[in-house]
This record gives sequence, structure tokens and C-alpha cells, in this order.
Amino acid sequence: MAIATRSIAESCIAAKRAARTLGRAPTAAKDAALAATARLLDERAEAILEANAADLADERAAGLTDALRDRLTLTPARVAAMAEGVRVVAALDDPVGEELDHRTMASGIDLRKVRVPLGVVGVIYEARPNVTVDCAALTIKSGNAIVLRGSSYAQRSNAALAALVREALAEAGLPEDSVLLLDAGDRDGLAELATQEGVVDLLIPRGGEGLKEAVKAVATVPVMYAAAGNCHVYVHAAADPEMAKAIVVNAKVQRPGVCNAGEKLLLDAAIAASLGPEILAALAAEGVELLGDERARALGGEVEVGVAGEEDWDTEYLALKMAVAVVDSVEDAIDHINAHGTGHSEAIVTGDGEAADAFVAGVDAAAVYVNASTRFTDGFEYGMGAEIGNSTQKLHARGPIGMRELTTTKYVGRGSGQVRG
Amino acid sequence: MAIATRSIAESCIAAKRAARTLGRAPTAAKDAALAATARLLDERAEAILEANAADLADERAAGLTDALRDRLTLTPARVAAMAEGVRVVAALDDPVGEELDHRTMASGIDLRKVRVPLGVVGVIYEARPNVTVDCAALTIKSGNAIVLRGSSYAQRSNAALAALVREALAEAGLPEDSVLLLDAGDRDGLAELATQEGVVDLLIPRGGEGLKEAVKAVATVPVMYAAAGNCHVYVHAAADPEMAKAIVVNAKVQRPGVCNAGEKLLLDAAIAASLGPEILAALAAEGVELLGDERARALGGEVEVGVAGEEDWDTEYLALKMAVAVVDSVEDAIDHINAHGTGHSEAIVTGDGEAADAFVAGVDAAAVYVNASTRFTDGFEYGMGAEIGNSTQKLHARGPIGMRELTTTKYVGRGSGQVRG
Repeated sequence: MAIATRSIAESCIAAKRAARTLGRAPTAAKDAALAATARLLDERAEAILEANAADLADERAAGLTDALRDRLTLTPARVAAMAEGVRVVAALDDPVGEELDHRTMASGIDLRKVRVPLGVVGVIYEARPNVTVDCAALTIKSGNAIVLRGSSYAQRSNAALAALVREALAEAGLPEDSVLLLDAGDRDGLAELATQEGVVDLLIPRGGEGLKEAVKAVATVPVMYAAAGNCHVYVHAAADPEMAKAIVVNAKVQRPGVCNAGEKLLLDAAIAASLGPEILAALAAEGVELLGDERARALGGEVEVGVAGEEDWDTEYLALKMAVAVVDSVEDAIDHINAHGTGHSEAIVTGDGEAADAFVAGVDAAAVYVNASTRFTDGFEYGMGAEIGNSTQKLHARGPIGMRELTTTKYVGRGSGQVRG
Repeated sequence: MAIATRSIAESCIAAKRAARTLGRAPTAAKDAALAATARLLDERAEAILEANAADLADERAAGLTDALRDRLTLTPARVAAMAEGVRVVAALDDPVGEELDHRTMASGIDLRKVRVPLGVVGVIYEARPNVTVDCAALTIKSGNAIVLRGSSYAQRSNAALAALVREALAEAGLPEDSVLLLDAGDRDGLAELATQEGVVDLLIPRGGEGLKEAVKAVATVPVMYAAAGNCHVYVHAAADPEMAKAIVVNAKVQRPGVCNAGEKLLLDAAIAASLGPEILAALAAEGVELLGDERARALGGEVEVGVAGEEDWDTEYLALKMAVAVVDSVEDAIDHINAHGTGHSEAIVTGDGEAADAFVAGVDAAAVYVNASTRFTDGFEYGMGAEIGNSTQKLHARGPIGMRELTTTKYVGRGSGQVRG
């Protein structure tokens, strides 16, 4: 591949050039590139798995945790799922050209506000090679070029996938440089990518706090952090007991290593004694380590509930571990969440409509659920096809970052000689 | 006023508390506060003019340029215009609660994406006291608290206006601390305001490059810069001559000190010789100093056209000065604008639909005009009532920053016990 021979600055400029063409490409051409990507993924599954096997056998992968090793591993099913994901994105509406506003100005100028691509999107990510394809599919369809920087231990897998998408772009008559993979081995690469002002229009680091801090320290380009989730489930006085148990256990246990997993349980004082022990026992039965405040610890009975320190309320465990607090009211629950949450996903379990409305209005977060698990905050679940990450910022995008979130707008005013008086 | 006795951090926290109430206030209460503001502006015009006269008589105002002094000056007509602006904002739709998306998820969860206020908006501004009222009106209606930092030489005018708005808020039963004016005399105040992480949700500096750099150096809160405009008017081969002349002159001359004023004239080579001299003469007749590239300088005839240096193409003059270049095609014009523009407002004058479409698609800017002056990019002209500034960023808001741009979104999912499988 010619990719590795370019500097990062040169790659970004090549992407910018590609973006000019891709940004104006008709929907049919972009969809053709995605269809070709999906077809090539099916046809070349074996070669991709070979590249992945080489990554897994490499010494760089030797020190990985089991969880990271699992994330790095591709299987025939996972490759097929990638292809399916690309087909889902192809089937979604093209956001480019969408008209968000249309008015005739007092001067008679016809003014439209339309969606246009951002330009060049940079993504920094870890482990999972499928991110390469998910992100490329979203950027192609939204008319953006993408510059990808994955993990060095996934370099062969990512390179095979990026090459495949580039081949599909060429087949559809679109510029190959719409998708560029950087050399992950280049240690200074992160800083160089994060300072391509005027070229990189948006940088999205996907990863832990370490990556976030590393990018924050150097970035001069616009950044959107796919951030942490310290998510709460609040069991209200009027909660259905079985529903509460099921939602709490699902939020915590179904996939503990992800940002929308439940990390904190808030029990209303009115039901703490009656319902608390049962929920704590259900969590313990799933192997969840429990910590609690004084009132919560009293509910454990035979289940051990350790002491939650002040820092626990602000910690995203990403593990089978949960801290439990007893709160006195909906307002207390809201205050606790707004003080300690990260603004990701928060849930209340209640049969009381007023309590639900107060929770929805009062909690300051990207997603608020009534009688549902926090685990639903996800681009695919939200009908966006996939997501490049999940934003807990308030500006530009809040929640899953899909195709619309990869666009900006342009006002187009068409007049007949209007001047301002 | 109790305002000055609080620290900046305390003021911001007070604003955050007020924002919780204001953010959930019904539209009628917010409109009542705006109606009271407009009424009080009418009733108290004399007192406001007195405070303004004291500012103008103060030694801090002695060194101001005529332009800044004019900006600082209030008149009965300007106070009446402020009141009218507030009434216009009151009449606009409330953006809070607007439903941007509504779907039933595969799991059966009812998912809505709704607009919610950002929380606390900080605005740093210079000279014009009417900004105090314009910004407060937009933030009140959009459910945000505002923390204002104006110029020290406008402190009495700003204080009188802020006190009046606070009185109107109280009259409507809304928290006074929804509008807070900081002490502009505090030199470290800018850095303190710009680092209230988790409290200030958005900071908007309105001013020149100096202010922008000062904020950039210290800010840790999200910032949106109300930025510079190096705006171009491109006269295409198929332009109507009279229209071209009128638009170029209007863009440059009607108000040269603002960000949407024309700064550069691009003449298509096809009409440079025929139409160029006439346009340059019309600009010179209005007192515009002209600079040009080699081909443009040859068009001057009796009109003097100086030498434009490389830096001229990137400079926002904000004065009766314009640089002129001759370009060979629409594509050349687009390339020139994308290389040197600031992404604010760009115009083409042409009778050729294809050229217009290519220009609209190719130019990367917040606003692109066909056969109209760049001067129309403005919140009031766009039907937003007013604007807090004009964004040339691509993220969150691009173009005039009105009420919608002062909101974020929240996903609200209502289920019946859904868990993720």
C-alpha cells in the first residue's frame, strides 16, 4: 500500500482533496461504494481473517488482556456482521443536501439552510478492527473523507480492511483517498494528526481517559470526545419490583465493559428495605461486587456490600462492580446524578408519571430512560446504522455520533440583486 | 446591585442554579419577562441614557476611537430599538421542547430527541451596550442563564440594563440570577470565566482577534468564537453589470466595520476589462482604497490601485479598503476563496445557473449568496430576532448564533421494562 509512505500532513491534505469530490458525489455513487465494500467483505473474508490471525500472533498482541484480545479477534461471523452493517448504512437516507430551513427573507432573498459534509474526519481508536469499516461507511455516506489511526497491534487487520474499502471506492468511481489509514506505529502521529488545523475538520478519539487527556493536551483541531459513562439506574418508590430488578441487572451485567453500562444504583428510601435486598442479591448472584453508602450497606443481609468512598460515586468501573446509594426523593436522585454523572445515560424505574417527568426534565444527560435499561444508547439501536462514538458533550452532537452528526450546515441565499439598506 | 460583591465562580454557580429553574419555565413566563423588559426599557429610557452619559463622560471613555465612541453611545432611538428587539424575540417560537426526532425503537421503546437549554452561557463583548439586552433576551427565551462580561468603559450602561432585565425576570416570577453582569474592571476575570468547567456550558467571545487569542490561550470550557469575516464578492462572466456594481459597492461600503462586509473583489477575466474599470471607479468614488494583483491593477485607469501583498488576501480590513484579483473561472474563484476566506459569507454575481450552482457547492462557508450582498448574514435578517454573534466554526453552529444555537438535545426513551439482549 502507498499509504505508509506519506507523512500524516500529506495524508490529511490528500484526504481534504478527496473530500471535495466525495462531498459533492451523488447518493448513488456513495451507495455503490458501500455495496462494493459489503460484497468485498463477503468475498475476501478469508484474507481478512488471515491478516487478523497475523495480528493476533504478533508479539505486540502478546501482552493484551483477554478482553482486548477478544476485541481484536475477527471471526467469519464478525466479518459478516461488518458487511451487514455497511448495507444498513447504505440503506439509510443521505444526510447531505437535507434542507433544515427554508424562508424568504424580508429582502426577497430565498434562504435555505442545508446539510453539507464536514470535510475530513479523523478517528483515533483502539483494538476492534470493525471500527475501521463502521466509521468508513458512515463517513463515505455522509460525504466526508476519513483519516484513521488504529492500534499498532491491529495494524494488519485495519490495513486489509482499509485497502478493501479503498478498492470499493475506486470501483464506484470515487476517490480512494476518501479513506486513509495512518501508520499506528508512529508515536508522534497523534499530536501531528491533532494539529492539522484547517485540514482536519473534526477529530474523534474513541478510547479511555488516557487517550482523551493525551488528545486534550495537544489538539488544535476541533475535537469531539467519545466519552465515559458513569450511568445510574434509579429505582423509584413506585417501581414495579420485577421490572426494577431486570433493568438494574441488565444495565450492569449484560456487557459491563461499555460506556452505557450501569455503574450506580440509586434506591429510593421508600422501597429500599422492601426491594433493595432482592435487587442486591440478584446482582451478587451475577458476580457483581457491591459497594454502598451507609444505608445501602444495611440492606445487604447475607450479601456483602463494601464501603463506597467519595471517589466511587464519580468512577466508571467498566467491570462487574456497582455502587449503591439510598436517596430520599426524585429530587435527591436528580441532584445525585447531576453531581456525579457524566451526562451519558440515566434511567428511572417507576410507575408514576409525574416522577418520570420530573426525572426526564431534571437529569442533565444525553439520554434519559423511563422503565428501560441504559444499555440502549447506541447508534444502531437508535436507527443510525452505526456510530463513530457516543458524545457526552452538549455542543454539536450529544449521544450517538452518526451521519447527521458528521455534517455541518450552509446557508444558501439566492437573490436578484438585493443589497442591504 | 449585589452583583459586584460576588466572585466570578460564585456568580457562575448562581447562574447555574437559576438555569435549572429557567430551563423548565413555561414559555408564557419567559415571554412575560421579555414583555416586562421591553416595557421597562420604554419607561426607564431616561435613566439608561443618564448612565450612558456618565460612561461617555468617564475618563475610561476618553481614549476611544470615534467608531467605538459611537458604538458606546445610546440615544432614545437606540433604546427604543432595544425594546423592539426584545419584543421580536418574545414573538418567536420557544425552541425548548422542540421535537427533532421521534421513533419507536426495535425494542418498543418510544424515543424522542428534544431540544433542551445548554444551561449557562457566558458572553464577552465590547462597547455596544445593546448587546447586553439582545443577548439576555435570546438566553431567557431559550431557557439559559447568561453571565455577561462587557467593556469596563460601558459598565454603568450595562449595569443599568442588566438590573432592568433582572427586575423584569423577578416580575415574571423567574430567577433574577438568570442574567448576571460581571465586573469588567477585574483583569483576571476573563481567565476565571473561561475556566468554570462543568458550570459554564458555552462561552462566546464577541470581538477582534486579540480577544479570540486571549480566550483561546486559557479556556477550558466549550467556546464558540464569533469570528472574523474575510468575505469575497465574485463577479462572474455572466454577471449583470449594474447588479454587480451595486452588490460590490454595498458589500464594501454600507457598513465597512462589520464581519459580513465585503473585503475582496474577484473579477472574472472574461469581464475584467469591460466591467472592471467601472466597478473600481464606483468603489473609488465611495472613498474605497483599492489594492490589486497585477491584472487588477491594469484595470484602474485613472483610479489608483495599489499593490496587494500576499498577506492582503488573508486580511479582514474592516475599513474602506478592498483588494481585487482577476480569476480565470468559477473554479479559480472557489479555490481562491477556500484558500483565503474565513468561511463567513461569500457571494457570486451571475446570470448563469450552472456557475451559481458550482459556486454554492464548492465554496466552504457559513453563508453563500447568489446575486445578493454578503451583508445579509445576520440573525435579525435571518428571522432569528437577534444574534449573539456569527459562527464560522463548522461544529454546533455555523452562521448567526440565535436561540436554537443556544440549545442542545436530550434523547428521552420511554419503555415498559425493556432490557437489552
